[in-house]
Amino acid sequence: MAIELDTGLPSVRQIQTVIREEKEVEMKLVTGDLLTGKVRWQDHHCICVLDQYDQPVIVWRQAIVYVKPKA
Amino acid sequence: MAIELDTGLPSVRQIQTVIREEKEVEMKLVTGDLLTGKVRWQDHHCICVLDQYDQPVIVWRQAIVYVKPKA
Amino acid sequence: MAIELDTGLPSVRQIQTVIREEKEVEMKLVTGDLLTGKVRWQDHHCICVLDQYDQPVIVWRQAIVYVKPKA
Amino acid sequence: MAIELDTGLPSVRQIQTVIREEKEVEMKLVTGDLLTGKVRWQDHHCICVLDQYDQPVIVWRQAIVYVKPKA
Amino acid sequence: MAIELDTGLPSVRQIQTVIREEKEVEMKLVTGDLLTGKVRWQDHHCICVLDQYDQPVIVWRQAIVYVKPKA
Amino acid sequence: MAIELDTGLPSVRQIQTVIREEKEVEMKLVTGDLLTGKVRWQDHHCICVLDQYDQPVIVWRQAIVYVKPKA
Repeated sequence: MAIELDTGLPSVRQIQTVIREEKEVEMKLVTGDLLTGKVRWQDHHCICVLDQYDQPVIVWRQAIVYVKPKA
Repeated sequence: MAIELDTGLPSVRQIQTVIREEKEVEMKLVTGDLLTGKVRWQDHHCICVLDQYDQPVIVWRQAIVYVKPKA
Repeated sequence: MAIELDTGLPSVRQIQTVIREEKEVEMKLVTGDLLTGKVRWQDHHCICVLDQYDQPVIVWRQAIVYVKPKA
Repeated sequence: MAIELDTGLPSVRQIQTVIREEKEVEMKLVTGDLLTGKVRWQDHHCICVLDQYDQPVIVWRQAIVYVKPKA
Repeated sequence: MAIELDTGLPSVRQIQTVIREEKEVEMKLVTGDLLTGKVRWQDHHCICVLDQYDQPVIVWRQAIVYVKPKA
Repeated sequence: MAIELDTGLPSVRQIQTVIREEKEVEMKLVTGDLLTGKVRWQDHHCICVLDQYDQPVIVWRQAIVYVKPKA
């Protein structure tokens, strides 16, 4: 059985909204890299971003600094 | 059901106060970035800051170094 | 008894697919290093990548930033 | 109900002593920053330092490298 | 009673093999340092490497990025 | 009641030995700093090192990369 994400949490819901509305986001990573693209899915460990070359990038949550709407 | 934040803890309460009073804060991140703005909400995983461009920045707690009143 | 990975999670399944299909990936690490190769196995703590010199590199999950298809 | 800090642990007790005796400390952070001031309170997630400008700085525990008496 | 490592996990077993066969490894650390030597023991928190000066270096697991055979 | 360290683990025992025998160690930190001195005590969260100026430095475990005998 899969561990469910707690959809009662604002952070989980807002990422779900961003997925559904296919909004572009900027995701800052602990390495300082800035990833730009659309969020495809999230689970307990990772968030997947489709980057500007349409490549799925599976990002580990512990490496995420922030997510914001693309400027 | 949502995991509740422990509002008995000083750190949780002080962030709640900052949200309610709409005070500007400086948030230092592990990347060395300094984020300035008003805190909108907090949950178990994240704290959301409205930056100087009025963009909501969802910051993961593990990436936060400190929060202090804006100088 | 071994702790099983939750194969109901998209992130676990996608890494399993990458292993089975022997696709080349790029794995970014917290040090900024970029590891290129085929994923051999994953468990609770680590993901093993066979690098371009055919050396098995055991990477700790906490050190992974992202995994994406090789460009 | 608030999660209590384990006051039987030396590290928790020593921080409590530093708070009570209002000693100045140096706190090194993962970003390399050195924070100087008096410790005000601690809880499960954070330690609050009053810096040299009398500003309360809420520092997340995961970002603390060390605490020592001010040189 | 000691917390046992899960020897059913590939990562734990492979480190055990490296210990038994006294193979030289390269261990990359989060600071970017590369440690070369033989692995002596592992437990829940640490892995001990005998470096090129025959000094036992107790490395905390959270600081390990990867382990691979010495090139 | 204090959370006890698991003294059955090699890493915990070796630090206890270093404390009892008052050996000088080098402790590498995630910031890249190298701390030299004698280990005074350890608990669940921290290890305390008496540095070369006889100052007690309380180091958080998550910030430790390695400990080795002083060269």
